[in-house]
Amino acid sequence: MTGDYEIIIIGGGPAGLTAALYVAMSRRRALLLEKALLGGQIVNADRIENFPGFPSGVGGMELAELMQKQAGRFGLESSYTEVTGLAAEDAGYLVIAEDARISARTVIVAGGSEHQKLNVPGEAEFVGKGVSYCATCDANFFRDRTVAMVGGGNAAVTEALYLTRFASRVYLVHRRGELRATRVLQERAFAEPKIVPVLDTVVEQVRGDSAVRELLLHNVRTGTDSPLKVDGVFVAIGFRPNTGYLRGFLDLDPQGQVMTGARLDTNRPGVFAAGDIRSNSGRQAVIAAGDGAAAALFAEEYLRGA
Amino acid sequence: MTGDYEIIIIGGGPAGLTAALYVAMSRRRALLLEKALLGGQIVNADRIENFPGFPSGVGGMELAELMQKQAGRFGLESSYTEVTGLAAEDAGYLVIAEDARISARTVIVAGGSEHQKLNVPGEAEFVGKGVSYCATCDANFFRDRTVAMVGGGNAAVTEALYLTRFASRVYLVHRRGELRATRVLQERAFAEPKIVPVLDTVVEQVRGDSAVRELLLHNVRTGTDSPLKVDGVFVAIGFRPNTGYLRGFLDLDPQGQVMTGARLDTNRPGVFAAGDIRSNSGRQAVIAAGDGAAAALFAEEYLRGA
Repeated sequence: MTGDYEIIIIGGGPAGLTAALYVAMSRRRALLLEKALLGGQIVNADRIENFPGFPSGVGGMELAELMQKQAGRFGLESSYTEVTGLAAEDAGYLVIAEDARISARTVIVAGGSEHQKLNVPGEAEFVGKGVSYCATCDANFFRDRTVAMVGGGNAAVTEALYLTRFASRVYLVHRRGELRATRVLQERAFAEPKIVPVLDTVVEQVRGDSAVRELLLHNVRTGTDSPLKVDGVFVAIGFRPNTGYLRGFLDLDPQGQVMTGARLDTNRPGVFAAGDIRSNSGRQAVIAAGDGAAAALFAEEYLRGA
Repeated sequence: MTGDYEIIIIGGGPAGLTAALYVAMSRRRALLLEKALLGGQIVNADRIENFPGFPSGVGGMELAELMQKQAGRFGLESSYTEVTGLAAEDAGYLVIAEDARISARTVIVAGGSEHQKLNVPGEAEFVGKGVSYCATCDANFFRDRTVAMVGGGNAAVTEALYLTRFASRVYLVHRRGELRATRVLQERAFAEPKIVPVLDTVVEQVRGDSAVRELLLHNVRTGTDSPLKVDGVFVAIGFRPNTGYLRGFLDLDPQGQVMTGARLDTNRPGVFAAGDIRSNSGRQAVIAAGDGAAAALFAEEYLRGA
């Protein structure tokens, strides 16, 4: 991980892995940096039905492994480290990681997003004791128990359906009067007797002793508070882009996402952004993968022209 | 194919099929129109190595069938007809096809591109008699024969390599002094003894009798003309976007590609463009697929907001 690279890719989800595949096929001296597990958010998905090419769906972890294997076949070089800074230098950019400073002529920022927190009392205290952001990871701990899923989008409804395979009851708590999820998913959720929608409702507090025992709910329509007995609470209310270290260096939108042009370029020539980390991303694996391929092609053109 | 639709998708390549998958999962009243064969350009690809999720590569026709099956699982409605016009009307848009006029609130233009022609004497005359735009389709006719591949990009070099499995010699004719293809492909081509690069050279004429016999070549560096004996000539010099019917209705770039904003929106509200048909597309299956998913999500948002 010493020496200079032509392309450094920050983040190993579908965007970063697809960028890496393309970059490796171009025989560029390239390095992929990932702080946790290759695959990104998709490793949390039990089954992905909307990644084209897989008519019966594909496991999130399986898809991550397939992508990694494919990039590896063409010689992907990768390293597990967290990037904490990015700076300009004469020949390009300096990537500052936990344990190294690496020079690169171009950078593809593909660090994705992290789970949004509820930010209510008790949430942080009970993480791992009943509060979870990953149904696929933790559902097994709630066999024949009662849980709540907080959220109303595709992720929340998909994970609520998954939880019904384990839990005896799944309260689907959403702040609005209607879910945001696609109609197919809504129909499935409403047809599932284990799922109990709790609409117009927000979580005010997570309560328990050695583990979660109940949620304090607030109905935004009636203004009333009420407790709800649960053994666990899953949260799927969105994501925060992993752009803290980029603030002041790249132009970000109000949500903290990287602003990009039509060629996935940023305000820094030679720095591109791909996937969930950028503005206007659809937060879908196939969109992130397409972004990764495009960013790799644009970086390749930039290197040729430089 | 009568009645009104919420979304009409024009074109059934990776962009259109992925848009259809997303739209079908949203239970929108949607219709996919395709003039030829579902799959688009990828059906001409013998093997696709850079579509993420397929570490050993996947046949182009096979990938097209997988995508079609997946969208079909969620109830894709499609029809084989050529779209010849698009017009605004009160409630949205009127799609004018060969045999029908169909109203839609939103339209996703995903018609891709067609093969660019050489536009030299003899080319049109010998199509199907030695002139081909699809190595995968026609290579088998040139077993132990001599052929030329015209072009220098990834498509040309990929198809030249494929042709070596059939032909005894493949001249790779390119107008520039260097190929545009990725280094991996260039290395493979230069390591293949059957491939003979003919650089700085353009085709002036295709000559023959009942079939192609020779090409008249022009060296742009020396200015000299010379004949080259071949039994066939394959052309892979790019694509023309299928936007003839959109001229004057949608804003197009100088290459005739649809101009899009950050949300794949066009100058007509509710009309989106996805895949090879739009400006700045990377002309890759996975980029087109990502575009299709994004366009479907943006069309969905548009319908919700309308």
